[in-house]
Amino acid sequence: MTELGIVAVGGYNEMGRNMTAIRVDDKIIIIDMGLRLDRVQIHEDVEIDKMHSLELIEMGAIPDDTIMKEIDGNVCAIVCTHGHLDHIGAISKLAHRYAAPIIGTPYTSALIQHQIDSERKFGVKNRIISVKAGGTYQVSDDVSIEMIRTQHSIIDAVFVAVHTPRGAILYACDFKLDRTPTLGEPPAFDRLRELGKEGVVAMIAESTNATRAGKTPSERIAHDMVRDVLLGTEESDVGMIITTFASHIARLNSIMQFATEMKRTPILLGRSMDRYVNTARELGYIELPKKTEIYGNRKDIDKAFKKIMDKGKDKYLPIVTGHQGEPGAILSRVANGDTAYKIESGDKVIFSANTIPTPMTQANRYALETKLKMKGARLYDNVHVSGHAYREDHWELIRLVNPENVIPAHGNIDMHSAYIEMAEDAGYELGHTLHLLRNGEELYIED
Amino acid sequence: MTELGIVAVGGYNEMGRNMTAIRVDDKIIIIDMGLRLDRVQIHEDVEIDKMHSLELIEMGAIPDDTIMKEIDGNVCAIVCTHGHLDHIGAISKLAHRYAAPIIGTPYTSALIQHQIDSERKFGVKNRIISVKAGGTYQVSDDVSIEMIRTQHSIIDAVFVAVHTPRGAILYACDFKLDRTPTLGEPPAFDRLRELGKEGVVAMIAESTNATRAGKTPSERIAHDMVRDVLLGTEESDVGMIITTFASHIARLNSIMQFATEMKRTPILLGRSMDRYVNTARELGYIELPKKTEIYGNRKDIDKAFKKIMDKGKDKYLPIVTGHQGEPGAILSRVANGDTAYKIESGDKVIFSANTIPTPMTQANRYALETKLKMKGARLYDNVHVSGHAYREDHWELIRLVNPENVIPAHGNIDMHSAYIEMAEDAGYELGHTLHLLRNGEELYIED
Amino acid sequence: MTELGIVAVGGYNEMGRNMTAIRVDDKIIIIDMGLRLDRVQIHEDVEIDKMHSLELIEMGAIPDDTIMKEIDGNVCAIVCTHGHLDHIGAISKLAHRYAAPIIGTPYTSALIQHQIDSERKFGVKNRIISVKAGGTYQVSDDVSIEMIRTQHSIIDAVFVAVHTPRGAILYACDFKLDRTPTLGEPPAFDRLRELGKEGVVAMIAESTNATRAGKTPSERIAHDMVRDVLLGTEESDVGMIITTFASHIARLNSIMQFATEMKRTPILLGRSMDRYVNTARELGYIELPKKTEIYGNRKDIDKAFKKIMDKGKDKYLPIVTGHQGEPGAILSRVANGDTAYKIESGDKVIFSANTIPTPMTQANRYALETKLKMKGARLYDNVHVSGHAYREDHWELIRLVNPENVIPAHGNIDMHSAYIEMAEDAGYELGHTLHLLRNGEELYIED
Amino acid sequence: MTELGIVAVGGYNEMGRNMTAIRVDDKIIIIDMGLRLDRVQIHEDVEIDKMHSLELIEMGAIPDDTIMKEIDGNVCAIVCTHGHLDHIGAISKLAHRYAAPIIGTPYTSALIQHQIDSERKFGVKNRIISVKAGGTYQVSDDVSIEMIRTQHSIIDAVFVAVHTPRGAILYACDFKLDRTPTLGEPPAFDRLRELGKEGVVAMIAESTNATRAGKTPSERIAHDMVRDVLLGTEESDVGMIITTFASHIARLNSIMQFATEMKRTPILLGRSMDRYVNTARELGYIELPKKTEIYGNRKDIDKAFKKIMDKGKDKYLPIVTGHQGEPGAILSRVANGDTAYKIESGDKVIFSANTIPTPMTQANRYALETKLKMKGARLYDNVHVSGHAYREDHWELIRLVNPENVIPAHGNIDMHSAYIEMAEDAGYELGHTLHLLRNGEELYIED
Repeated sequence: MTELGIVAVGGYNEMGRNMTAIRVDDKIIIIDMGLRLDRVQIHEDVEIDKMHSLELIEMGAIPDDTIMKEIDGNVCAIVCTHGHLDHIGAISKLAHRYAAPIIGTPYTSALIQHQIDSERKFGVKNRIISVKAGGTYQVSDDVSIEMIRTQHSIIDAVFVAVHTPRGAILYACDFKLDRTPTLGEPPAFDRLRELGKEGVVAMIAESTNATRAGKTPSERIAHDMVRDVLLGTEESDVGMIITTFASHIARLNSIMQFATEMKRTPILLGRSMDRYVNTARELGYIELPKKTEIYGNRKDIDKAFKKIMDKGKDKYLPIVTGHQGEPGAILSRVANGDTAYKIESGDKVIFSANTIPTPMTQANRYALETKLKMKGARLYDNVHVSGHAYREDHWELIRLVNPENVIPAHGNIDMHSAYIEMAEDAGYELGHTLHLLRNGEELYIED
Repeated sequence: MTELGIVAVGGYNEMGRNMTAIRVDDKIIIIDMGLRLDRVQIHEDVEIDKMHSLELIEMGAIPDDTIMKEIDGNVCAIVCTHGHLDHIGAISKLAHRYAAPIIGTPYTSALIQHQIDSERKFGVKNRIISVKAGGTYQVSDDVSIEMIRTQHSIIDAVFVAVHTPRGAILYACDFKLDRTPTLGEPPAFDRLRELGKEGVVAMIAESTNATRAGKTPSERIAHDMVRDVLLGTEESDVGMIITTFASHIARLNSIMQFATEMKRTPILLGRSMDRYVNTARELGYIELPKKTEIYGNRKDIDKAFKKIMDKGKDKYLPIVTGHQGEPGAILSRVANGDTAYKIESGDKVIFSANTIPTPMTQANRYALETKLKMKGARLYDNVHVSGHAYREDHWELIRLVNPENVIPAHGNIDMHSAYIEMAEDAGYELGHTLHLLRNGEELYIED
Repeated sequence: MTELGIVAVGGYNEMGRNMTAIRVDDKIIIIDMGLRLDRVQIHEDVEIDKMHSLELIEMGAIPDDTIMKEIDGNVCAIVCTHGHLDHIGAISKLAHRYAAPIIGTPYTSALIQHQIDSERKFGVKNRIISVKAGGTYQVSDDVSIEMIRTQHSIIDAVFVAVHTPRGAILYACDFKLDRTPTLGEPPAFDRLRELGKEGVVAMIAESTNATRAGKTPSERIAHDMVRDVLLGTEESDVGMIITTFASHIARLNSIMQFATEMKRTPILLGRSMDRYVNTARELGYIELPKKTEIYGNRKDIDKAFKKIMDKGKDKYLPIVTGHQGEPGAILSRVANGDTAYKIESGDKVIFSANTIPTPMTQANRYALETKLKMKGARLYDNVHVSGHAYREDHWELIRLVNPENVIPAHGNIDMHSAYIEMAEDAGYELGHTLHLLRNGEELYIED
Repeated sequence: MTELGIVAVGGYNEMGRNMTAIRVDDKIIIIDMGLRLDRVQIHEDVEIDKMHSLELIEMGAIPDDTIMKEIDGNVCAIVCTHGHLDHIGAISKLAHRYAAPIIGTPYTSALIQHQIDSERKFGVKNRIISVKAGGTYQVSDDVSIEMIRTQHSIIDAVFVAVHTPRGAILYACDFKLDRTPTLGEPPAFDRLRELGKEGVVAMIAESTNATRAGKTPSERIAHDMVRDVLLGTEESDVGMIITTFASHIARLNSIMQFATEMKRTPILLGRSMDRYVNTARELGYIELPKKTEIYGNRKDIDKAFKKIMDKGKDKYLPIVTGHQGEPGAILSRVANGDTAYKIESGDKVIFSANTIPTPMTQANRYALETKLKMKGARLYDNVHVSGHAYREDHWELIRLVNPENVIPAHGNIDMHSAYIEMAEDAGYELGHTLHLLRNGEELYIED
């Protein structure tokens, strides 16, 4: 009989440093290797790209994969579900320890390559294999990895199904059940239903938003809210700056389109804007409005701001980094008066993002907002919807897929608790078919 | 020189019992006469319709208009801006003391008539004059009342401009600047801009949501969210019940349309559903889908529930009262098991409403939700957007209308404080052009 | 080898309906049988004393002991740790199903007797055995129950140690490690340390306040705060009313003493004041100041209020029920103006209690406070300290007793989560030596 | 007739940069010149001691006293009520602009002198006059300044009464009505009552804690709580570190006394510990236990930590700076592992302080606590009571002093709002006898 194990490496006690290992007899598939940024932020003057993995493990910033030594088996593949740092950020620190290829969808693969290229401590040589959503990677005769299309706040995100002789193990972390996305297709509901019929031994699901009632609003909602803030105003000739996640290609796509509608030139500013957007463009995920400008390095950005001031703030819509008040990001530099762009009374600054609810980020945002307000800016906050499934989306997924076992992941114990209560409503029993794992534990899936 | 006074009768120290008097020399125009429900709810076994006004004043439930005796002048008109209870609910208790007509838009007038008809203590005989949005009522040679179209969570809501020899006094309470409403037209921006150019001596504005950053999302957003909850599900054949404000005709209109799209019969249940919707239909504000059923009295409602159970819960979309957990409302009766409708595991209950943030209401909602969950219902809460302007909407209105003086109303001192800080940003000075009034005070507008 | 089981009957998914069964081979000892009041409060017109247990189980108000049928063994004893309703309130509904004596300390036993006497549905005939703190009840040759003195917000509370051939199982629910109590002795630290050395197989501990950092302040702190509010004022001749938990004998003892110091007559009003205080007096736990008056029935209370008004409010300190705003309690009646006692501007109302954080109670308190304030009362809220151990008290207990296994109880999953994280710091491992039980589960303690 | 004016220079729109000017005809008395630290903290790399006042005014960090040019009259005195930075921190930036002496109680004066000495931009030459609590400084024939003893979280704090021909103006900012202080005497209630009888034209009162119900607990409560945390434990030989406000001499006095009781050497570490405590000792406000050690500079501190590790952590009680997580403070250095002191599992870190509720501070505290916990420390937070009057203390003061006019100060508009509602209960009327001032406004006290 095939032995199945699920190893909670990271992200089971906290948000951020996600890593799960799935063992099928002696074959191990690692899913995600993420970075927990707020464990880095509490230290001053940390340069992650120069740090050793053991140091980062001790800080709690990356998964403690030293426990992998005690797991019987060989790692055959490292799969990443999407390109956010809490899923790929530790690749450059940990992947080289395993003689296994790294697998991701095309956009995710490209971002992993960037991540590896910017590393300055380790040389990661693992082969990167790009598998499209809908595709499969064969690990062995009887084990394969299937990439199933989903929606999230980044393009090309997938559920991962590990097919084993005893059925599939579904890894469903970082998704929303968006039926009206603004870029790409809705999740592959038909395939999920089919999978449920074929038999799912276990499902690992993110508990991030399990505390929130109802269902996650569609990206369509954010699209309309952003449009209304930008275009639905009597004060259409004031300065406007908008900031959002550089990796949120769908949102950026909407914003650039609105800029054109406003007869303003969309101008993307910031190193990560440059990277994420150009990568998406090159791979054919989006097409930019013709007049769009993108500047990634400091000198070009400073020049761009001068140009904006010369030609008129009402001619441009700067789309910038800095929505979390990161010191050094473009918006913080504007707020500090370190660029040519002058905020005047009545200018609008739009945050198409939530504030990440950690104290370090809240402080950064407070500093940023205070400075902007003192210059006279009018702030539009949280013009945004979440990319994570709410409680009823989890309810629907669990009933669609009908797994024998469920395991909440990607969250702290409070988030898992909310997931557990939902799963109990759906008929699961804690300790029997519903499992609360802690970092470092292996769950054996009994037959 | 014309003397102008603004008397804060009620709603300046609290949410709810709104009443303002505007004095132009010896002519007085009263705007709104509202009821504060949460001052009623803290008492057991209160029957408002049988109570005397003095008793209700002492309870803090209706405006203390006894101060009107000290205001020099004659009341020439009582104007109501829209049909919510916190604006018309005290009409039946106070209006008969004044020899003046009651003025409202057609829908508001109809609701006022209902209010008066259901009163059991006083006989209100004042003439009710219906003036359409865009229309004007002439008080005297040099004083007139203009009804200016706006948007709110009830149809046919207006701003009121009192035109005086010294310019207009604009009463802008309970509005949102919705440019994409789902029923009716956007606010009359052109007229407001024009008014600003003609000269506005003072603006009285609701501070209700001045604490909230950004702008109020359009009703279009709620429309799309409700649709997604109802139609965007893999579990389309379960029981579904939806509850919303009976007076929110635009929302109800959307819901009935979605029911049709779902191939379910929309079935409106509850006394107030019957009254508000049929009034709107009779006056031509909406057209109901052909198969729509409406039942207002208990017997018919109970029969309707039996029919639903007989024919199948998946054939109907009950649209019911009880979103605030009001004991006795339809949804509470369902939750208590007092009707034929049986909630089963997986049935959906959708609250297309926020929870009013008062402890009495929160307790009612908690009791309701607990009972529904114990029966297995899945809850979708707050599938809703506000009907009140957020901070930046106020900023835009203030700049559009450019009033000499501004006075926050319809809120407690904390809400007013948020408004004050916004108005200071816009150049107003507290104590000079920006005024914090308390119930019972008269502000003299100096020349 | 002796088989040990711990059955989570109630209070493992929620606060309130506490019940645990400990199985030693085929002998079962039940600990606590409590009532969850807020599951009763969400229903209108419920009379618990007339209701059947099955109905109360379905409401979630009392433990679902129907699962006991599946536990192999005979119930030999029902032990109650102290006299609060969430520990003894279901005795009158469930105890008669078991042919076993009920065991409690003298004060607890007396309250259990009252509970049984006021029951109108069932006749509970079980023998009640009073065992003093420090004493032991022998269940069989090799199983005994030891009552170990602790401190809590009621007198005569104990830890319960069930001694088995494999070591003790310690039930540590509802306690504080108060080294400076104002009535009675501190917890029996020496005995606990000794027990730790003898060997504790498992400890069941309340997680109620595990979310709170640090240690619970001593009752001495509440004593001094109450004294300062009563005596530390320049306005010593105004009306003063104080309300606290009728079962909090230590607090009442302090208050009566302060009344005497203030040269006011302490006058206890309310049915439960009468019961709890007179029981404590009769059993010798407290001595009342000579002039103390106590009135339990409505007529006497009304007369007492008349006397107070006649002789002067400054001559008395009424100590009344109603700190949670319970409708019908004395303070609510005063606030409603239903008694002769007139609140005037500047009178003080002191809540020597926290507000229980459930929506029903918060609504009751809001109604009460609003009415009191409208009459001019000055409110002193939360002049109180908790009776439940905070996180570091748990840390100390766990290290003192050094149990092989720990199980959080008396709380919801969020409270348990906080306990789990603390216990992990102390070296326990979830799923191995640290157990998250859900209502209805039996944990087998492996050897 | 004497003209009286009250100028709100700073601290009327915010917490922190307090400054009020009182004008008696052409004589002006300035009270307090404070610094708002959180307006400094939002900027990186700011060195206040080198900055120009205009820059600090623009940042919102110190009062904007440029408005003083428009006030008719001469500044005759600058009075400081106590030595906290939000009351004396701008002295070194602003005082030299006025040809007037600086007046404070002895401890306050000494701290002002330190403040001036550490300034590196301006040379402040104003004479510093020390006036004891209870004493008076004569400004002119008919104007004098009286220092009235109060209690606060720093020693030698006073109310200031400015005596004018029309009666006194009482400045009552930063006080608590502590009747059982642990150092010094209670506030001079008799003198306040007398002052009330003589006639108080206006009272300026801090609104900081007007939102909090009831009365501020006495410092005696904090004393007992700290003692219980330090001595009331079964784990008395673990490492313990305590941190509190360096200026809170009463608290430090208690802690040093407990250290002695614990048979540990109290060892005060940190530059500000050194300054505040030694100043208090030199002036005779406290006597230190014989074995007490104090180290202010880095080298000595590092040596002290080595000694502690050598001799045993259980031999010492380090009392350190860093309760707000200030980077660079002693506790942050310990948490970073930058000192010889090693935190081990079970060591206790006691915060005898609240967390100042600003995002920057909350982030600092979070970083500090996270690091301490990762090293195994057990945290005791908020073992503390406030130094600011709660709502009912204000109620008592207002009735004791019976001022004709009251003006809330030292707070933002929300805090003032709470004060206003309390004062309205006491019979004051907003706009007539109760005034909401904004920074930059002068209130003329009409006769």
